[in-house]
Amino acid sequence: MAVKFSIEGVEGLPEITKGADLAALIVDGVLLEDGDILVITSKVVSKAEGRTVEAADREQAISDETVRVVATRTFEGGATRIVENRQGIIGAAAGVDASNAPEGTVLLLPVDPDASARALATGLRALTGAHVGVILSDTLGRPWREGQTDLAIGAAGVHVFDDLRGSTDASGKPLAVTMPCVADELAGAAELVKGKSSGVPVAVVRGLGHLVGDLDLPGARSIQRPAERDLFRLGADEAYNEGYRDGFDESQAEGPLTSA
Amino acid sequence: MAVKFSIEGVEGLPEITKGADLAALIVDGVLLEDGDILVITSKVVSKAEGRTVEAADREQAISDETVRVVATRTFEGGATRIVENRQGIIGAAAGVDASNAPEGTVLLLPVDPDASARALATGLRALTGAHVGVILSDTLGRPWREGQTDLAIGAAGVHVFDDLRGSTDASGKPLAVTMPCVADELAGAAELVKGKSSGVPVAVVRGLGHLVGDLDLPGARSIQRPAERDLFRLGADEAYNEGYRDGFDESQAEGPLTSA
Repeated sequence: MAVKFSIEGVEGLPEITKGADLAALIVDGVLLEDGDILVITSKVVSKAEGRTVEAADREQAISDETVRVVATRTFEGGATRIVENRQGIIGAAAGVDASNAPEGTVLLLPVDPDASARALATGLRALTGAHVGVILSDTLGRPWREGQTDLAIGAAGVHVFDDLRGSTDASGKPLAVTMPCVADELAGAAELVKGKSSGVPVAVVRGLGHLVGDLDLPGARSIQRPAERDLFRLGADEAYNEGYRDGFDESQAEGPLTSA
Repeated sequence: MAVKFSIEGVEGLPEITKGADLAALIVDGVLLEDGDILVITSKVVSKAEGRTVEAADREQAISDETVRVVATRTFEGGATRIVENRQGIIGAAAGVDASNAPEGTVLLLPVDPDASARALATGLRALTGAHVGVILSDTLGRPWREGQTDLAIGAAGVHVFDDLRGSTDASGKPLAVTMPCVADELAGAAELVKGKSSGVPVAVVRGLGHLVGDLDLPGARSIQRPAERDLFRLGADEAYNEGYRDGFDESQAEGPLTSA
């Protein structure tokens, strides 16, 4: 057995409040080494950046963070909006979330998660001299599959894709379309030690130093597929209804068809 | 730092052919311990189960494996069908794949990945006495995000969800809708050591024994959301076109609207 890595939660971090120096707090909690990748729950970055609003303003905050509505799920007593938010991420409620937020408030995502990741990676490298990468994670649902996984919403100093296009498989055949999103896989792996209720918002991945690189590598924004190239850019009901209206109007405009 | 796990690729497995005893081969390659979770690339299970067809029959194989077409992406010279396959998995080409398949053939997914996982877990537990779990993984694309991640398509002896519904966050607020799909996160984490071109199809996760359980736990099939509850059960273009036809026909049936 040769290729191996480990993931460890960083314990003992204090409750993060606005203005907290996350890089300094992380360095207090763990001795970083070259090639480490830190996966940080975006919520603590939001807290450090003061991205809180009053809980009473939650619906308005979701609207403010929304660039376009992708789909709406209605249920008894309400509706969940699946939207593309300012950060380009498609998810429920634009990432606005009450869990693990200070009492009476909800947390918004960092304004620019890649920039937040870059600032953190820069700070961590300066404080320790270690060549480390940073991923900011968030918990997101997905089409077709129940439950959620943690995904990368910000990244710096780490390759977000293991671009295998052009390489070959074990038998020499080209792997034409294979481009594993290692940043998402790392975010999900870190969730397995961070948990949701344990108050451990940071994990260190050790052993995958080949994925660490320059601070100007493309960030997590490069993971987002532009809507015009996405087969699922709109919910099925929303697309059906749009088509229905257009078909109805077009039929009215054409008038009765002259068929037998 | 307290919560920690490691993932290690199992090296030295021979090329897997039809009839191979995977459990015996894995036990030759790694000393298993209680609480280990094995993540196995479903391709080697397909090979052991003889799930190969002639490459010339690829398109027919995809049709045969397809339960319903979800969306079609056309490109110069062809089209990719995103379909729900017999196993209930939504993905490109029904999981029929030429990469890492024997020359001149393509591989189909195992007929029943959860049953394959259960057989493997049963065999591994019998051979070693160790209480281990098994996940079968496959590489899948996803809406909204570029690249692929490895996901769980079969599971046995392992909890596929870390069901937190009813529990609370660090500040005591209920985590109403949070149900991390740990099986998918484990599959993705294992991809980070297995890679696509390294010929390492098995990885061992050590340190997450709390996720290992009885062999009759729900398998990966329980991850699949039924189409009727899925906001993205159909591609946006396909849903639009369906709506357009219905709207057009309805408008024809109603006749000219009596408006001003």
